[in-house]
Amino acid sequence: MAEVDMSDDRLLPPEPSVRALARELFAQVRDLPLVCPHGHVDPALLAEDEPFPDPAQLFIIPDHYVHRMLHSAGMSHAELGLVDVDNTPRETDSRQVWRLLCENWHLFRGTPSKLWLEMELAGVFGITTRLAADTADDVYDQLLDRLGRPEFRPRALFERFNIEALATTDDATDQLAAHRLIADDAWTGRVIPTFRPDKVLDPDQPAFHESLRTLGEVTGEDTTSYRGYLDALRQRREYFVRMGATATDHGHPSAYTADLPGTDAEKLFRRIIERDHDPVDAEQFRGHMLTQMAAMSLDDGLVMQLHPGAVRNHDPRLLARYGPDKGADIPAPTDYVNNLRPLLNKYGNEPGLTLVVSTLDESAYSRELAPLAGYYPAMLLGPAWWFYDSPHGIRRYRELVTETAGFYNTAGFNDDTRAFASIPVRHDVARRIDCGYLAQLVAEHRLSIDEAHETARAMAYTRAKEVYRL
Amino acid sequence: MAEVDMSDDRLLPPEPSVRALARELFAQVRDLPLVCPHGHVDPALLAEDEPFPDPAQLFIIPDHYVHRMLHSAGMSHAELGLVDVDNTPRETDSRQVWRLLCENWHLFRGTPSKLWLEMELAGVFGITTRLAADTADDVYDQLLDRLGRPEFRPRALFERFNIEALATTDDATDQLAAHRLIADDAWTGRVIPTFRPDKVLDPDQPAFHESLRTLGEVTGEDTTSYRGYLDALRQRREYFVRMGATATDHGHPSAYTADLPGTDAEKLFRRIIERDHDPVDAEQFRGHMLTQMAAMSLDDGLVMQLHPGAVRNHDPRLLARYGPDKGADIPAPTDYVNNLRPLLNKYGNEPGLTLVVSTLDESAYSRELAPLAGYYPAMLLGPAWWFYDSPHGIRRYRELVTETAGFYNTAGFNDDTRAFASIPVRHDVARRIDCGYLAQLVAEHRLSIDEAHETARAMAYTRAKEVYRL
Amino acid sequence: MAEVDMSDDRLLPPEPSVRALARELFAQVRDLPLVCPHGHVDPALLAEDEPFPDPAQLFIIPDHYVHRMLHSAGMSHAELGLVDVDNTPRETDSRQVWRLLCENWHLFRGTPSKLWLEMELAGVFGITTRLAADTADDVYDQLLDRLGRPEFRPRALFERFNIEALATTDDATDQLAAHRLIADDAWTGRVIPTFRPDKVLDPDQPAFHESLRTLGEVTGEDTTSYRGYLDALRQRREYFVRMGATATDHGHPSAYTADLPGTDAEKLFRRIIERDHDPVDAEQFRGHMLTQMAAMSLDDGLVMQLHPGAVRNHDPRLLARYGPDKGADIPAPTDYVNNLRPLLNKYGNEPGLTLVVSTLDESAYSRELAPLAGYYPAMLLGPAWWFYDSPHGIRRYRELVTETAGFYNTAGFNDDTRAFASIPVRHDVARRIDCGYLAQLVAEHRLSIDEAHETARAMAYTRAKEVYRL
Repeated sequence: MAEVDMSDDRLLPPEPSVRALARELFAQVRDLPLVCPHGHVDPALLAEDEPFPDPAQLFIIPDHYVHRMLHSAGMSHAELGLVDVDNTPRETDSRQVWRLLCENWHLFRGTPSKLWLEMELAGVFGITTRLAADTADDVYDQLLDRLGRPEFRPRALFERFNIEALATTDDATDQLAAHRLIADDAWTGRVIPTFRPDKVLDPDQPAFHESLRTLGEVTGEDTTSYRGYLDALRQRREYFVRMGATATDHGHPSAYTADLPGTDAEKLFRRIIERDHDPVDAEQFRGHMLTQMAAMSLDDGLVMQLHPGAVRNHDPRLLARYGPDKGADIPAPTDYVNNLRPLLNKYGNEPGLTLVVSTLDESAYSRELAPLAGYYPAMLLGPAWWFYDSPHGIRRYRELVTETAGFYNTAGFNDDTRAFASIPVRHDVARRIDCGYLAQLVAEHRLSIDEAHETARAMAYTRAKEVYRL
Repeated sequence: MAEVDMSDDRLLPPEPSVRALARELFAQVRDLPLVCPHGHVDPALLAEDEPFPDPAQLFIIPDHYVHRMLHSAGMSHAELGLVDVDNTPRETDSRQVWRLLCENWHLFRGTPSKLWLEMELAGVFGITTRLAADTADDVYDQLLDRLGRPEFRPRALFERFNIEALATTDDATDQLAAHRLIADDAWTGRVIPTFRPDKVLDPDQPAFHESLRTLGEVTGEDTTSYRGYLDALRQRREYFVRMGATATDHGHPSAYTADLPGTDAEKLFRRIIERDHDPVDAEQFRGHMLTQMAAMSLDDGLVMQLHPGAVRNHDPRLLARYGPDKGADIPAPTDYVNNLRPLLNKYGNEPGLTLVVSTLDESAYSRELAPLAGYYPAMLLGPAWWFYDSPHGIRRYRELVTETAGFYNTAGFNDDTRAFASIPVRHDVARRIDCGYLAQLVAEHRLSIDEAHETARAMAYTRAKEVYRL
Repeated sequence: MAEVDMSDDRLLPPEPSVRALARELFAQVRDLPLVCPHGHVDPALLAEDEPFPDPAQLFIIPDHYVHRMLHSAGMSHAELGLVDVDNTPRETDSRQVWRLLCENWHLFRGTPSKLWLEMELAGVFGITTRLAADTADDVYDQLLDRLGRPEFRPRALFERFNIEALATTDDATDQLAAHRLIADDAWTGRVIPTFRPDKVLDPDQPAFHESLRTLGEVTGEDTTSYRGYLDALRQRREYFVRMGATATDHGHPSAYTADLPGTDAEKLFRRIIERDHDPVDAEQFRGHMLTQMAAMSLDDGLVMQLHPGAVRNHDPRLLARYGPDKGADIPAPTDYVNNLRPLLNKYGNEPGLTLVVSTLDESAYSRELAPLAGYYPAMLLGPAWWFYDSPHGIRRYRELVTETAGFYNTAGFNDDTRAFASIPVRHDVARRIDCGYLAQLVAEHRLSIDEAHETARAMAYTRAKEVYRL
């Protein structure tokens, strides 16, 4: 049975003098607490603190990075144990799904999924057996045993992971029941919501009209009038703030922003709620509402996050059978220089606003994003996102961004994960790559070692706390 | 007389520990047979097995990488020995053309052309003299001597190169006479055709209408009716399959695909053969026919290759005087996420289809191509293509693709060359760079050495065999 | 008090064998004279040879790289000492501005601004104290003392820097008074103008119509007629040539070129001077005039430089209060393959024309620019520009360009700076990075050391002299 190589030098640059510097830098940040200002962990997990059911339901079925790769090699989503929108009972049991992963483990060579899962198995579960057809059952049994123990329940892991704060992502209309449960019981873990109003800002979302009705019910405002709609949004933001939120998040198809005069905005809103609008109207509305969100952020202090540029649900059959967020979202070219201009021209020079912008189009990093963040006080760059939250991806991010925007126009790391057990390894990977990058700067005499230490600490820990006002 | 540095460590990473790993990996793959599933060698070369005439006609005149660089420094195509479309006798003799190359050898520093030619001269011809004005004649004479010997004839080289299979690229209407000659004689080299129907799928090709007539004559189908046209294509594909073909290839201006209802397709076809169409019609037709090709591939098992994104014949004067493929094709931004969607939505989940997609727009690798290939079972990525089939180009390809799509959503290497003598060195370069990349992953503890060995072998040899069903 | 790390190995690759090669290469080029064919130093500086007033007015206030970064962290332009368009007296004294820089020095970690300023302080002023809140006043005083001494006046520095020729950038209507002063006095420094006609070629420039009137006055031509306008431009170019100019420079929003028939051009010109044109007309006119400039270059031998792709004045409030070139120009995607085609189709094969093209869109390097420069004799690539004139930026430039275009389709280095004291360090950085890149090629056995030496010298010195006909 092969063992996984869990060298403590993993991901550090191989050249000995640079590696020595990277080790020294990493030693100072590896055990810092985890600040998690952006992610997709279900708060019910921590509210209920139930054991994770089994390895497939922990590592494969909810992780689109994993099942998309297996699907790309010809396995169907049904074989992979996904539950369809009709809740048809799964045709593959979890042990069989786990075997599929292990038999096809070679597909993941060179991917962050391999890195994350091997580091999770070793670091969290103490298992360093290489995944393979002939080790699948043994590892499955070991994991199943671990998952049944109290020290592997979500709250125990939260504490073991040394998470200082964990932000979830929540619909604007969400009553945040799980967050309230956590707040009300004796457990002291800090789990805070994030205000994600896409469903009430984006007329192209299938749930838009229903969400608007819910927004009206929840707030008591008349969300069929533009003024009532804005008031309802303000009221919800206040509620999120009271529940501990420090940020909003916006997952629009593009980075388009607009700033319409009040009467135009009202007329546009009217067309939209009367379903008498075209795609240009929808884009205008989303863009206008981003600028409104910035205005509200100036009032209530919520940090604004923008995650644009995914063509969602590229495969309509997958969407129809299994729903959204199942691995078929594909990045597209994304314009920032023109699209962000209306918002930045209005609020970009406000020191009170923090707008954290991410991208799935790496060609925009050095061309548009670093130059914008290196000028406008309000704008910061989010960390390497989604497909790029990986060793090469993070390294390219630093190389493309730093020379124009420096380190302090970036917002620090966030793990952006749905996979709770992957939180510490994602931070670990980012810390290692950042330390390797800083070590390279020191080795090239661009930075002194004490400057590198301070910067490593900022990127690993303090920067995210400051930026997200945690 | 300076000697070329032919160190066996060439192209391996310089850091000693990584180089040692790369050497170990490369030692296992360097002598594997060459699988060549995509290229542009003229099959008549191997059918006739005539000696190559002289160094200029072997290395310069047919190689657009070489003469475009000399042209960029001010040498005219006439000086460089190119034959014009009127077949005007060349005004420069081959020795003089060779001298121009040698006198200007510094222009090629840092290019793959320098690497390839130096490796060919050393590895195939045993000549390690540095090219320069004062060595031009001596090297020319040595090469001329070699080329006259039987062991430097095409078939002898084919065997020496250890080519397991060589695919050529052939018009849909080609009767494959050279392939038949090879099949019918005693020589056992495997030379197979590839079905390249651009001239009968693309209404913007100057030869389109004439090719359609030829297609009708060759097949006996009425290619003025849409149904007859499709039947003719099917018949030709069958003929290619009988002659050993395992793939089609499509060199469209964009990656646009469409899936038109039958009656719309018929009407569009009618407009096109009546020359009553506009550029949008032409694009629609090309796009629709790609989807038709995918449908036919599902029936006959031909692997489908798509090579989009070149602005062909950027210099109209060159085209007018010397014809196409003479070094003035320039890449353009290429959309995949929207353009491939109709085809992928229809057939992308079919495990029976293999669609190998290449790009000349590297910004699409991490943004669109790796995410698409990492989801759709039918889609794979071709190797770094054309301008990017080079040490940095291949390295960037791996760095941009692997973290999202892994190694096994790539199709293995192909040399894509018109220059027969460059086949082994192109494989050698790719094997070295891939081993260097894998060595880096091992040195960073992302991969075990045995995983790297297996992957190196797959990228160098087995993957291309499997993907192209050879 | 921390000292800055001024190792002589700075920016050389850390791997010892590569570093040794890089050192050897750099030793041969580090002291070569500086050829500066493109930059933005005010010629009055050298005509008047007055002492620099103080550190803030030398290093911060005129340097948009520096004050944009401080602004991005929330400091206002007023605090940073910028003078507004009404010439309101500055509200912050220079010492206070300097303190702001020192207190916020961490913002610049990893940027070329840090590198440049530290190298300037050490190399030009002999100060190696790290900038920080507690060293600000001491360094300020030391600098103030130095700046008062004769050996720190502009001409003395020009000689100490070993500048062989320095090109400035000058409006087409400029009478070049400072250049005449320099030419007429005994000082032998070579300071030459560059013909920059944007204000008389671009109808979207606010000063266009006024500049056209001035152009008429200066030349005595009727610049309200197309013929008179062209004659006036020719006359001005001749004047610049007489004053030593060897180049023109064009800073258009895009790389669009056009070649209109004479009557269409005349009609377009008429619409434009009558202000009866739309944005498409303006783009057509700029594009047409670039092709006219190429035609004139063929007559008068001026090298043509094109610097497209910046969205100028992204922040309208900054423009209104402080004017242009204050750090809010942001790059945008830039098309070259289609846009340059009309000009290149007409003149690209002319060996007598030199067109040096730069980009702010790095995705175009390997996709469009290297392929174009590697084919058309007239076209060369300018060095890594603006945001990319940095260690990683230059390195990416070489990696993206060289394999397709080689070294000799690049135009050599230029510093492109407004900051006089940064000239030697900018050359030093480029020489170091180029030597590191060449060392890597040698270490990978792609280049012999003597080839690398010759290439390093060409990139550092001879190439710029040849290309710019200096």
